[in-house]
Amino acid sequence: MAPALEAQVQEEEQSLPQNNNFYNSLNDATHRSKVTVIGSGNWGSVASKLIASNTLRLASFHDEVRMWVYEETLPSGEKLTDVINRTNENVKYLPGIKLGQNVVADPDLENAVRDSNMLVFVTPHQFVEGICKRLVGKIREDAEAISLVKGMEVKMEGPCMISTLISQQLGINCSVLMGANIANEIAVEKFSEATVGYRNNREVAERWVQLFYTPYFIVTAAQDVEGVELCGTLKNVVAIAAGFLYCFVDGLEMGNNTKAAIMRLGLREMKAFSKLLFPSVKDSTFFESCGVADLITTCLGGRNRKVAEAYARNGGKRSFDELEAEMLQGQKLQGVSTASEVYEVLSHRGWLELFPLFSTVHEICSGLLPPSAIVEYSEKLPRSF
Amino acid sequence: MAPALEAQVQEEEQSLPQNNNFYNSLNDATHRSKVTVIGSGNWGSVASKLIASNTLRLASFHDEVRMWVYEETLPSGEKLTDVINRTNENVKYLPGIKLGQNVVADPDLENAVRDSNMLVFVTPHQFVEGICKRLVGKIREDAEAISLVKGMEVKMEGPCMISTLISQQLGINCSVLMGANIANEIAVEKFSEATVGYRNNREVAERWVQLFYTPYFIVTAAQDVEGVELCGTLKNVVAIAAGFLYCFVDGLEMGNNTKAAIMRLGLREMKAFSKLLFPSVKDSTFFESCGVADLITTCLGGRNRKVAEAYARNGGKRSFDELEAEMLQGQKLQGVSTASEVYEVLSHRGWLELFPLFSTVHEICSGLLPPSAIVEYSEKLPRSF
Repeated sequence: MAPALEAQVQEEEQSLPQNNNFYNSLNDATHRSKVTVIGSGNWGSVASKLIASNTLRLASFHDEVRMWVYEETLPSGEKLTDVINRTNENVKYLPGIKLGQNVVADPDLENAVRDSNMLVFVTPHQFVEGICKRLVGKIREDAEAISLVKGMEVKMEGPCMISTLISQQLGINCSVLMGANIANEIAVEKFSEATVGYRNNREVAERWVQLFYTPYFIVTAAQDVEGVELCGTLKNVVAIAAGFLYCFVDGLEMGNNTKAAIMRLGLREMKAFSKLLFPSVKDSTFFESCGVADLITTCLGGRNRKVAEAYARNGGKRSFDELEAEMLQGQKLQGVSTASEVYEVLSHRGWLELFPLFSTVHEICSGLLPPSAIVEYSEKLPRSF
Repeated sequence: MAPALEAQVQEEEQSLPQNNNFYNSLNDATHRSKVTVIGSGNWGSVASKLIASNTLRLASFHDEVRMWVYEETLPSGEKLTDVINRTNENVKYLPGIKLGQNVVADPDLENAVRDSNMLVFVTPHQFVEGICKRLVGKIREDAEAISLVKGMEVKMEGPCMISTLISQQLGINCSVLMGANIANEIAVEKFSEATVGYRNNREVAERWVQLFYTPYFIVTAAQDVEGVELCGTLKNVVAIAAGFLYCFVDGLEMGNNTKAAIMRLGLREMKAFSKLLFPSVKDSTFFESCGVADLITTCLGGRNRKVAEAYARNGGKRSFDELEAEMLQGQKLQGVSTASEVYEVLSHRGWLELFPLFSTVHEICSGLLPPSAIVEYSEKLPRSF
């Protein structure tokens, strides 16, 4: 085999869980991994479904998957957790999809994590810090975390990735899983892919891959936590730009060049920003599912794109909060807050001019510029557009 | 400025023609460059329009742009060249668009190239070799060529890129221009981008950039002829795969994960194939417009995608030739022949198994497999898809 492809194929092979000794050692009940999903929104519910199908199938995991649910009372007067446990469906955030009978909804956060050594974080990013504070001292010492959360926290000392936040608050290792995030498609078992970003331990990465991997959800691993996480986070900002822009591109069949151009320019800023923040970030990560594929998916059909398009169609006269409430049934839009956080980093470091796409998105979202500014956002997207 | 972004910005700056001394020396009439466009299909006509707007505007070029037209008699009985020269429109291949009054259609190939030092090749790839044979000894010694042609020739001694074919046959240097190739969008001045791939001479690359660059058609240069050319060529094979696949993805809003996945898997085979053939090919080329952006454009809206989708909808019962004739009004489909050429290379070198996407596309196009085979083309796109 030629060397270049050999390396590629080897990488592929490694990305599937092959380490049988490792898994065999986990096969006795006392060493089985136990999983808790912290979050039960649209993506959290789909993640629970994926995971539950694997814990049933694989001997190295306890069957039961705990899903921590932020308790709500439904219009019927019933508690959301009761309905999930009775019907096996998250009727509010993923109606019509069976989660698997081994998913147990639990409104008590501390109880939900008590026995688990694999913690899956999948909440809106603004809730992560508060949740971690409640979890300090309440989790197993050998626990590993993975974050499916998109977003970043900007603190006085600089930007902090969610995986780092979890790691620091809880004193545990934290990987990430990013990729095609259109949860409703995965829920109905359409083919898609994802990337696990891990720091050092390949075996840990393989365990996460095994937990999520299904024939319709292909997961590979990349040793680049920050690169994978920033891909997942920043693509939402590009999707907002795409949404603004689509409003000015006529017709269904026209404007594909333009759509592709905004994705490429966005990818370029994603790559430049990530590498400036973390010189360890690898170019190859942007060729993974979490990079180019997730960007395409999100810019074609994601909710950030859709709400941004609605915002532009209304000429900025209806707020994002209003449109979000109307269009997303309680789901949160990540792109707008991420754009604001990225803007804070850019202005703090004097990089605004270097990132015209990112800057313009925030300036439109915050009402400083009209949505049409996206078409003039740099000399590269001219007025005659 | 931080080093990573400085390098990027520097690259951007270099990609615009800044070398004033070089251009000033060309400003007197005797040294003005004269351009001939060899080909007058859809893309050739759009290229002529782009070029003609620049030769009028810039002192370093002769105003007149010769466009060689393969003469046809229209249903009205008129010659195509006569109609183009009278109406300033290519009524057959780009109706409704004015080319610029300085575009002169010429049915005589030798006459069309006689005075020109910049030759733009933009014909279906199967005609390039014959045209070159007719041009031997008929062109200026100082001529430079650029190829906008997608495709490759497979000869006994191995694959031969079109730029290499032109170079070898005519003994001149040949660059390439690839990128968003949906000519009808560029024709109506929708924003898009392209990449000039050049071999050694940066000044030559800048002259080509200057000839094509307009506010709505942003051209950058990359020193990687083979990488740029293979991007432009191979993406048509991925677009065929995307077209087959779209037939099996339901609804307008669904299946974006799947679409993104096939583009990413295609990009991966494009990169692996290019680097196996030419170890000099750079990863960074795939982030240029000719790479990821053109791939997205082509898979979303290109003619290869559309005809392949129609082929799959008809269950392979109507031939590509028939659909091409019906759907493309005389334009040629490049992806099918490229898939066949790529397959020849793969089977000759024993690489078939390493390129399941490329192989499967050819096997479907040639009737060995049904269109539905695309959803099973490897273990990665499973039967349950």
